[in-house]
Amino acid sequence: MAEIVAIKTEPAGPVFAEQANGIARLTLASPPANALSLSVMAALQAELDRLRDDRSVRVIILAASGKVFCAGHDLKELTAHRGEADRGRAFFEKTFAACSALMQTIVHHPKPVIAAVDGLATAAGLQLVASCDLAIASHEATFCTPGVNIGLFCSTPMVALSRNVSRKQAMEMLLTGETIDATTAKDFGLVNRIVPREYLNQVVTKYAQTIASKSPLTIQTGKEAFYRQAEMGLSDAYAYAGRVMVDNMLARDAEEGISAFIGKRQPEWKGE
Amino acid sequence: MAEIVAIKTEPAGPVFAEQANGIARLTLASPPANALSLSVMAALQAELDRLRDDRSVRVIILAASGKVFCAGHDLKELTAHRGEADRGRAFFEKTFAACSALMQTIVHHPKPVIAAVDGLATAAGLQLVASCDLAIASHEATFCTPGVNIGLFCSTPMVALSRNVSRKQAMEMLLTGETIDATTAKDFGLVNRIVPREYLNQVVTKYAQTIASKSPLTIQTGKEAFYRQAEMGLSDAYAYAGRVMVDNMLARDAEEGISAFIGKRQPEWKGE
Amino acid sequence: MAEIVAIKTEPAGPVFAEQANGIARLTLASPPANALSLSVMAALQAELDRLRDDRSVRVIILAASGKVFCAGHDLKELTAHRGEADRGRAFFEKTFAACSALMQTIVHHPKPVIAAVDGLATAAGLQLVASCDLAIASHEATFCTPGVNIGLFCSTPMVALSRNVSRKQAMEMLLTGETIDATTAKDFGLVNRIVPREYLNQVVTKYAQTIASKSPLTIQTGKEAFYRQAEMGLSDAYAYAGRVMVDNMLARDAEEGISAFIGKRQPEWKGE
Repeated sequence: MAEIVAIKTEPAGPVFAEQANGIARLTLASPPANALSLSVMAALQAELDRLRDDRSVRVIILAASGKVFCAGHDLKELTAHRGEADRGRAFFEKTFAACSALMQTIVHHPKPVIAAVDGLATAAGLQLVASCDLAIASHEATFCTPGVNIGLFCSTPMVALSRNVSRKQAMEMLLTGETIDATTAKDFGLVNRIVPREYLNQVVTKYAQTIASKSPLTIQTGKEAFYRQAEMGLSDAYAYAGRVMVDNMLARDAEEGISAFIGKRQPEWKGE
Repeated sequence: MAEIVAIKTEPAGPVFAEQANGIARLTLASPPANALSLSVMAALQAELDRLRDDRSVRVIILAASGKVFCAGHDLKELTAHRGEADRGRAFFEKTFAACSALMQTIVHHPKPVIAAVDGLATAAGLQLVASCDLAIASHEATFCTPGVNIGLFCSTPMVALSRNVSRKQAMEMLLTGETIDATTAKDFGLVNRIVPREYLNQVVTKYAQTIASKSPLTIQTGKEAFYRQAEMGLSDAYAYAGRVMVDNMLARDAEEGISAFIGKRQPEWKGE
Repeated sequence: MAEIVAIKTEPAGPVFAEQANGIARLTLASPPANALSLSVMAALQAELDRLRDDRSVRVIILAASGKVFCAGHDLKELTAHRGEADRGRAFFEKTFAACSALMQTIVHHPKPVIAAVDGLATAAGLQLVASCDLAIASHEATFCTPGVNIGLFCSTPMVALSRNVSRKQAMEMLLTGETIDATTAKDFGLVNRIVPREYLNQVVTKYAQTIASKSPLTIQTGKEAFYRQAEMGLSDAYAYAGRVMVDNMLARDAEEGISAFIGKRQPEWKGE
């Protein structure tokens, strides 16, 4: 299984972008903490926005350099604004708004986003993992929501956490601030698979290639429908998903896919 | 533990119906795929509708003949209508509407429905399993939502899947189209129990007998309330469930059941 | 790890209250069943209401004396009112209203509530466990919703159960009435941890001490936000949680906590 070979790279910044063979890899590149300062969030947001319209990319991998996947918000940056009017309220509002928008961009992104976690994901860093469609972790990955230790409950991270993990498990993480290991994270439903560190890139790439081999239109349609129907009652969800299904049947890619399946040949997707 | 001995069987059709001792068994009988063509869905719908009012039946088992539990929609039937007006839209709408109605009939059925899965359940076949109240599988059972492989995302199956399985696990199945085994399905919450193939019928029958020994009125009341309260906020759910509980207390079967419990004797249910 | 040493105890009643070092322990003290009669529910409600405003208490442990954690409603008390007008409806309404209010008091309580379960928790007794923020059980703990056996479906307990446990697992408990052991309860997400009986008190106290060491304002803010956002769609949840986060940042405890973290010292919480 060939790993990604970068054919296009952006200038070095807080987010390193590579893409090849339909797969983009965005790497948080501000070690050791990979903290989500405003500039890092803006860079990640910009990359995600750019990839939205890049038809050559079908799947996005979100990774990080160094031993920490992402340590969450940049506390020094946050506190530096305490001296401003209303003790920094405007800056805090800007920061959390940017973060919530970033997380929802992942959820609503037309392309699946896979987190590749090889280290500590904490607070808004855990929120990034929880917001991705899939997450693959190395055995060295760890996770926590330690806000209670500094008087700042992980209230926005828990929006994503509690949509991945059951109630008592989420509450244990949030109330105690203690760190869970990769195995526990898998048991909790926060990650899909755990692999040895040396195979993490290979396995994540394999997942990405599998998904990139499908019709991008079908994937986009289905991903959007998944999160929309999840917020509906059963009756509304069926009414909505039924309409999605009919439209999907009428798309050229479904016609091609079904014909190929019946004819026992490989489909050729047009994205239409 | 005696297994079901048919005392009444319908003429051979796409759904084979037996019933005895308060338990009905509906068997998909169109091997090898047991595909959900319009006629199969209509037959299953008709059986479920008939059983709704049959007071002799308290529990329904949904099984299948052959190595495939159910392969989902009948792709040949679907594609045969491509030549019609608007490329078959009316037929697709009819098909998915029938399917969604069938699935919701199971959820809203006054009698518990137990899936007995001994083979592959895929796409709308997996949806059938996910829609049942309980599911018991053999070690040979497998599950997948492979629509992405043919350009047709499993959007309606995911309505049921995502109400059984956590987000990342459901997304992995939907985005990759890969097959999971029975053990994984149990870990995910899609099935309740896994048993050796040779004991599947026995174990499913035991579950059915256990439930059939309860007051049918109580079971009907509780099943309906379960799915209704699941869609409410906590406060509304308690207000609603409290009313259900009071009405249940005032029913004759609760009076009998509580008296029997206090008097240490077997209750005699009237279904009132 | 020192266990709780009572410095204040209430007169012996159906609920025994102790508190020390920021931790209150409420013990159901009506063995052998610890049934939730109206008077027991009133006593528990009164203790929870009292602790709401007691600033010396930061965490509440809910325990029970004897081999049964709590057997649910008092069936003899319920049936004693059958002879009243409308076959006891008014009394039933009063009972279930008191119970639902009690459970919601736990969920909405400003202080985390940890269940310490060392025995059978059944029906409304299981509902108590499910309503707590965390639950620690001994290996001897067991759980069931056996209402179907007496013609009275556990409709109010299932409101709490179904917010802890996935659908098919909850339905299996509700429809069969069968008892699950502590390990299964942990797999289902109903309890956080299982420990040997002789260490239960020690482990629960350790959890309570960990949480009591955090800012009480932060814990209260976060707990309330957790349950509120859980009932919202993603977009609303983020809008709400973002406001909570900004307000939390502006609180003195967050300022102190972040300063202490950056300065590598212990924070001193003011609860402001």
